[in-house]
Amino acid sequence: MSKIKYSKYPLVYPLPAALVGAIVDNKVNYETLGDCGIVSVYPPVLYISSNKSHHTNKGILKNKCFSVNIPSVDLLDKVDYCGIVTGKKVDKSNVFKIYYGNNKDIPLIEECPINIACKVKETIDIYNMKVFFGDIIETYVNENCFTDGHIDTLKINPLIYCMDNLYWTIGKSVGKGFNSGKNYNDIIKNMDRR
Amino acid sequence: MSKIKYSKYPLVYPLPAALVGAIVDNKVNYETLGDCGIVSVYPPVLYISSNKSHHTNKGILKNKCFSVNIPSVDLLDKVDYCGIVTGKKVDKSNVFKIYYGNNKDIPLIEECPINIACKVKETIDIYNMKVFFGDIIETYVNENCFTDGHIDTLKINPLIYCMDNLYWTIGKSVGKGFNSGKNYNDIIKNMDRR
Repeated sequence: MSKIKYSKYPLVYPLPAALVGAIVDNKVNYETLGDCGIVSVYPPVLYISSNKSHHTNKGILKNKCFSVNIPSVDLLDKVDYCGIVTGKKVDKSNVFKIYYGNNKDIPLIEECPINIACKVKETIDIYNMKVFFGDIIETYVNENCFTDGHIDTLKINPLIYCMDNLYWTIGKSVGKGFNSGKNYNDIIKNMDRR
Repeated sequence: MSKIKYSKYPLVYPLPAALVGAIVDNKVNYETLGDCGIVSVYPPVLYISSNKSHHTNKGILKNKCFSVNIPSVDLLDKVDYCGIVTGKKVDKSNVFKIYYGNNKDIPLIEECPINIACKVKETIDIYNMKVFFGDIIETYVNENCFTDGHIDTLKINPLIYCMDNLYWTIGKSVGKGFNSGKNYNDIIKNMDRR
């Protein structure tokens, strides 16, 4: 396969279109981030990476907590809107309905099927970015996103962002983790038997 | 919407099914990680978070570099296989064809449509995980994954991992970044005019 040397670009596919929530100057604020992911499952830790100039950081640094909310595809316009306008100039507090878990400094977005409340465990500066590592203290899931007791990804219908600057839907399931690989293993074993 | 308080679980949707490559004890090794994402676009920085017990870490810590390779759906079995077996016990060096860019300590996977070569900028320990921040030094893309000069996500056909422990395909494009939100903005403006 011919390879093209591209510009030094972080072509990670896919990314979440996460909505980060925090209270900044006594007002709820949101920012949209693709720079969000898992750091540890047990114990559960997330990261978000947010430009140092971003308004949301101010609230996170003050309250030492934030939320990560996973939006469905139907929230596309609102999600993108929160990535276009800054809370420094525009009041975004009414874009979504908010509820709270045990921590009243962590606004959770009612409309998003998944809400994760985090306490800042650690921060690190990487060039222009402030990276927050958050211990997960609570996770909420919409009641109607379960099938037979399990979270149903098609009911979550997550909004996906890709580095082509397009938003995407999830497609179809093609395999099971820690299981599909056994097919390859079998191939190897069969090769060994030849 | 009724919310269910779930266990403290990092329900970030979606995740990449990234293949991290490194040279460990003079042998190419791979590990499959969903814990991989973007930290900074300019300058370009990625993170990977890998359990401290993982074999790949040894090579990354020694050579201070690694690759992140984005697989297509057709590599499902091999990708999952690299997440099931450890390089401590199984030689994975022949699972993929390898090529090199300028740095001969960074193995790049020929079969993956995107290959990103990284030099370790910083590491941080988060509980049982070693988090590596990598400065991107080279990015390669398969020649046949472009349409009209732009990277075509459907041609990349990225393998997606979700926290339901299933692998997924990408679906369809539903909007453009920093653009779809204008629809919401227009709604607000129109509301103001009433």
